[in-house]
This record gives sequence, structure tokens and C-alpha cells, in this order.
Amino acid sequence: MTTTMREGREEVVLPSGFRAAGVAAGIKPSGSRDMALIVSDVPSSIAGVFTTNRICAAPVKLDRERLRHGIARAVVVNSGVANACTGEPGLRDARRTASLAARRLGVPEQEVFVCSTGRIGTRLPMEAVERGIESLVASLSDKGGEEAALAIMTTDTRPKRWTAEFSAGRRVARVTGLAKGAGMIEPNMATMLCFLLTDAAIERVALQRVLKEAADQSFNRITVDGDRSTNDTVLLLANGAAGGPVLRPGRPGWNAFEDMLFDTTLRLARMIVGDGEGATRVAVIRVRGARSDRDADLVARAVANSLLVKTAWAGSDANWGRVMDAVGYSGAHVIESKVDVDFEGLPAVRRGMAGSVTDASLRAAIAKPEFSVDIRLHLGRGEATVYTCNITEEYVRINM
Amino acid sequence: MTTTMREGREEVVLPSGFRAAGVAAGIKPSGSRDMALIVSDVPSSIAGVFTTNRICAAPVKLDRERLRHGIARAVVVNSGVANACTGEPGLRDARRTASLAARRLGVPEQEVFVCSTGRIGTRLPMEAVERGIESLVASLSDKGGEEAALAIMTTDTRPKRWTAEFSAGRRVARVTGLAKGAGMIEPNMATMLCFLLTDAAIERVALQRVLKEAADQSFNRITVDGDRSTNDTVLLLANGAAGGPVLRPGRPGWNAFEDMLFDTTLRLARMIVGDGEGATRVAVIRVRGARSDRDADLVARAVANSLLVKTAWAGSDANWGRVMDAVGYSGAHVIESKVDVDFEGLPAVRRGMAGSVTDASLRAAIAKPEFSVDIRLHLGRGEATVYTCNITEEYVRINM
Repeated sequence: MTTTMREGREEVVLPSGFRAAGVAAGIKPSGSRDMALIVSDVPSSIAGVFTTNRICAAPVKLDRERLRHGIARAVVVNSGVANACTGEPGLRDARRTASLAARRLGVPEQEVFVCSTGRIGTRLPMEAVERGIESLVASLSDKGGEEAALAIMTTDTRPKRWTAEFSAGRRVARVTGLAKGAGMIEPNMATMLCFLLTDAAIERVALQRVLKEAADQSFNRITVDGDRSTNDTVLLLANGAAGGPVLRPGRPGWNAFEDMLFDTTLRLARMIVGDGEGATRVAVIRVRGARSDRDADLVARAVANSLLVKTAWAGSDANWGRVMDAVGYSGAHVIESKVDVDFEGLPAVRRGMAGSVTDASLRAAIAKPEFSVDIRLHLGRGEATVYTCNITEEYVRINM
Repeated sequence: MTTTMREGREEVVLPSGFRAAGVAAGIKPSGSRDMALIVSDVPSSIAGVFTTNRICAAPVKLDRERLRHGIARAVVVNSGVANACTGEPGLRDARRTASLAARRLGVPEQEVFVCSTGRIGTRLPMEAVERGIESLVASLSDKGGEEAALAIMTTDTRPKRWTAEFSAGRRVARVTGLAKGAGMIEPNMATMLCFLLTDAAIERVALQRVLKEAADQSFNRITVDGDRSTNDTVLLLANGAAGGPVLRPGRPGWNAFEDMLFDTTLRLARMIVGDGEGATRVAVIRVRGARSDRDADLVARAVANSLLVKTAWAGSDANWGRVMDAVGYSGAHVIESKVDVDFEGLPAVRRGMAGSVTDASLRAAIAKPEFSVDIRLHLGRGEATVYTCNITEEYVRINM
């Protein structure tokens, strides 16, 4: 255990009792890795949050159902095909994927979860899936986390992962997260998948509550294009293999776990937005002084999702006029003559009018890979932060 | 009077008693036409609808105030500078623009309306505006409508105009409309300006009511990029110069006027969306069978504003999966297994799953300059139609 490890690092170091693998099963025409498997050697508590889209993929339906049981032994993931809008046949494919893995692993079928990401409306090629599961099980290893992180990618240009350690009572435990997502990323989840693993022991009700909170502060605060996917899934498995007592709010070790979980999910969320399709810059949009947190959120999301704002930023033009326009139509209570906007601390707007800063300084300020936009409404105490990226011609090319 | 004229044509033929002009006043650095003037020789009834953006431009504030008086003699328009987010000084500039025109024309200042379109946050160059007004007044003519239609353009690639005739009692009257708009086009109005002129005599309460209805069925049903502007304005002037009785709902001539007005505004709205920045195709999205009209509207707008849908269409990929995704997150009540989607009458989706049509046929169907997308939810009688366009790399280039 090194000290850098305690602060966390961009790598998958699987917590005790977890093994993983990632292989190319032939689902993606490109021949890239397209299936991953994560296994806990002992029964693990599991928590999950899913897309709020009313049209959701077969694996989401299956996992929601299985979450009631609350125990997991494995997660099977495929990329390339979303298994969404595939009706009853798609649901059968998802069930069969889980049952094939359960049989191979010798674990109860009910304790196998399934996730898919890729094109909507296409059936899973089950022969490829079956072969994939065999080869995944054969290559499972406690070093397999990196391969798994690669196998869940679609338009991602890089894997997203983070591992941190914390003291769970007298033991050292670990939390590691692997995520994917680059487009169809908005409000309440996106085509994003995230798997969080810890070897701390945590009872499922507390686990579900803390995951919901972590997702609200991270994955639900990013937006690439405003589109919400049919497949978004975040699963958190806690298998207790690190030993030590069960963690509970108010007990020793809980706060350390919570901190590390929140830090990990926020880091992964920012990695997703930083890898937004075609994106070259991340903007952190902070709204303060709104009449309510809900109003602040409306303003932050209107700015973060404005196509005109995001294309202006692609051209290094801060264009505070377009930001003001979005503030105005956000639906929040706004008084034009009270609004201040700063880019990287520079006063772009004061009392609704041009502040004392040149366009050239603003241009330089937002030329950074990450920049802040602070919007103050001076109407109350409502606050919100949303992370977004610019929209370039490359985004259009990727999605054409 | 020709017969084609009765059906309407794509041209500004000013109704009796109206004169117009368009000039280059030096507001746009390009040297293109950037000021227009429309004058009624007699006091005219006026109705107006404006942006719903809480942050709105100085001319919008001024016109809203003047609309209470209900009488107009002239409208001064500039392109290049929006005069938005310019505070009290901007409001003074708008007032001064009106008063300069009023003095030159010898009409009451209260009866001069002002409209601006262009970049937000910049002050109007008042010397250029003053010179512009002089030259506009000097070149006013009953043939000046075409010049005015050109002068109000910003990123538009072509002017938008329509003229139709109708029988107002025993007289023939005319309604003509000139509009601009290509980006920042969404829900309730857009950076769009539209001037509707008629020589029928119409009392202002009826005029306001019919304009609101016409705008709801046309300009409020188009979307290019989901951004709502600070400057949107539609003005309808009725000067009665054709002679004949005052038109009222239920009286002879009213229905003919209403039909022509609705037809003219819908035509202009479709011209705007067809000239969407970088757009190469128009999609007409019809939703039926929703639980309510509001639900149908939510679905139509979610699809029409989905960046992923619009970029897929730019690549001639119908991608019904992305359409289904947007239907699902629209906020409307939806049951996945009941949804049908047709592209140009081809069954892309049946009961939430792939219909019996190949991707190649769908690709051919949406290769047209205008195509229909019919979404049926089978849950009730709610209906809505929204007109939109695809989003290409060119859109990003224009707005960078």
C-alpha cells in the first residue's frame, strides 16, 4: 500500500474478493473488446440506480427486478448492442445471458446482473454472447479490472476508472469504480454505465441510500448533449471481503467510505464529461443566489444544454450574450438587471450588462481545457453546479 | 390581379397604404443591408406577440409598452445588433431610434415600433442608425418590401416572404408577411422577426387574438436548436386602406382573412425552419394518440430537439432508436409496447420494436428535402405537430 494509493489513482485495483475480465466476443463489427464480467467470490450486497427514461432497455428491466433480492455474485456487460426496444424477445436474451453466466460460475441466476450499451433496436447476437461468457469466465482474474474497463467502452476515447482506499474500522478497504459514457449524456443518468466495487461490508438499505446520494451529486450533474439514454445503470457492490464490522451511518469507518465513494463518483462523472463526444473543453457551471435550488438547477442546465452556448465555446468565444439568453428562458425566476456572470473569475456581466472585461481576455480565459462559469442571480440562496462540455463539428461527425 | 395572386406567392406585394425600404446603414461590418422601415400612410391597428424569455431586448420592452396604445404608423428594424442586455442605455437607444424616425416621418413617436436582431450585449451604433433612418425615409416606396425583407436577415440564406389576397366584404384585401430567422429558433418564438401587413380594417382586440392564434399554430411549432431568443417579435398591422367595413369574427370576410393569415404565418414558419442554420432537411413530426395535447407536444418537442436525432438525420440515418429514446424521456406518459413510428409512411417501429422495413428503405425515405415522422402512442386523443430540421457540421461552424 503506497500513500498515493490512499489518495486514489486512475486505475482499477479490484477490492478483495472481486475478479474481472474483458474480452472481444464478436458483438462489435470492429472486433474490439465488447464483453466484461465482474464476479464477487462471496455473496455481495448490491445497490443500483437506473435511467429515468420511460423507454428502457431489457437489462435495466431485469436488474431493477433483481435488485429487490439485494444480493449479487456477478455482473455481465456487453457493449455494441443496447438490447433496448427489443420487447419480450430482448428480455429473454437478457435473462439467458444471466443464466449462461450463472451456470458457468455456479452461482444462483437471481444474483447475476446484466448491462448493455450500444445501438438501440438491435437484438443481442446470442451465439457471440454465449462464446463471450465462456471466454470471460476462463480469463477471470483479480488483475482483470483494466480489461473490463476497456470492454465496456463505446464511443469513449479512453477508459474511466478510479481506485481509492479508506480505513473501515481497523481494516483498510478499497472502493474502485469503472465507468463508460461519452454521448447521450444528460440529466438523470445517460448512456453511462458505472460499476462501483468495495470490499467493505455494508448493509443494502444504507448502500442504496448512499449510492443514490452519490449519483445525485455526480452522474446527475453532468450533461454532454441533453439526451437521456435507455440503458443508464450504476451498480454498487459491497462484498465485505476486507473483513471488519458492517459499516453503518454514524459508526466508525462510514464517513471515510462515504467520502471515498463521493470522490470516486464525482471523478468518474467528470471523466465522462471530459470525454464527451468531440469535446475539447469542460465547463463547470455554478449558479448561486437563485430563489431555490430547483431554480438554480434550471438555470445551470439551460446554459449547459444550450446548443448555441456550446458551439460558441467550441470556437473559444465566451459569448455571454448566449449565456444570458439561456438564463432568461430557463424557466427560473430571473431579474435581468441583477444578473452577474464571471468566466474564470473575470466579470463578463454585471447587473445584466457587459462587465469590465474585453472579449480577448474572455477568449483567453475559456481557452483552457476546463473553465468555470459563475452565474449569480442575487434573488436568494439557491445553488447548483453542472458539468458540461463544448459541442464541436466532431460531435456531429460522430453521430451522423 | 392574377389568379396566382389569389392563392398567394413568395414575394412582398405591399397592401394598399403601406410603403417600405431597406438600406445598408453600416451596422453590419460586412456592409450588407441592415436597416428596414415599414410605414403605414394612415394610422393602423397593431397586434404583437413577443419572446417569452425573461431576459428580453430593449426594443421588445419598448414595443410591449407601446402596444397598449394599439396604433402604429411605422416599424424601424435593424439587423446586426440585438440591443439586448444593454440595460437603461439600450432602452434609451431604442427610444431614440423611434423618435428619430417619428420626427423624419412627421408621425407621433408613440406610434413607432422598433425591432432589433443580431448579437446580444452590444450597443446600437446610434450615428449609423441616424444616417440609416434618413436614407430609409428618403427611399420609402410601395415597391420597397423586397428590400426590407433582405435588410432584416442575419444568418438567413434567403429572404422569407409571402403575399396573399382575400375578399374582405366586396373589396379585395391583401395580407403580406416578411420574416427572418435561422438559428436560436425554438418553442415560443425564436430570433425571429415577422411583420404582417394587411389593408383590411380590423379592430385591435380581434387583431391581437387572431395573431396569437396564428403564432401558436406556426412560429410556436418550429424548432431549429431549442434556443429561445431575447428579441423575437411578430407584429401585425391592419390599416384598413383597402376600404370596406371593419372585419370581425362572425362577419363576412373574417374567415377569409383568418385563413389567409394562418396560411401566411405557417408558410413563413416553414421557410424559417427550412433555412435553419446549416440545415439540409425539414422533418414534420406529428404525434397522435397521446393522453393529452400537452403530452403530444412534449413528445414532438423532445424528438424535434434531440441533438442525437438531428445529427443522425444529417447522416441520412433514420435511427428510430434515438427517436424512441427521446419519446421515452419527453416527460409524457408513454407505454413502450404501444408505440408506433412511421417515416414517410414506412413502419419503422411497431409496438415498441423494429417494424417491417429495412434500414435502406428508411434511409431513402428521409433523403428527401422534407420528410414526415408519425408517432402514435395509442393512449388517447392528444395531437401535436412540430417542424424541425437536421443539425449538420455546418450548424456548428456557423455558430462557433
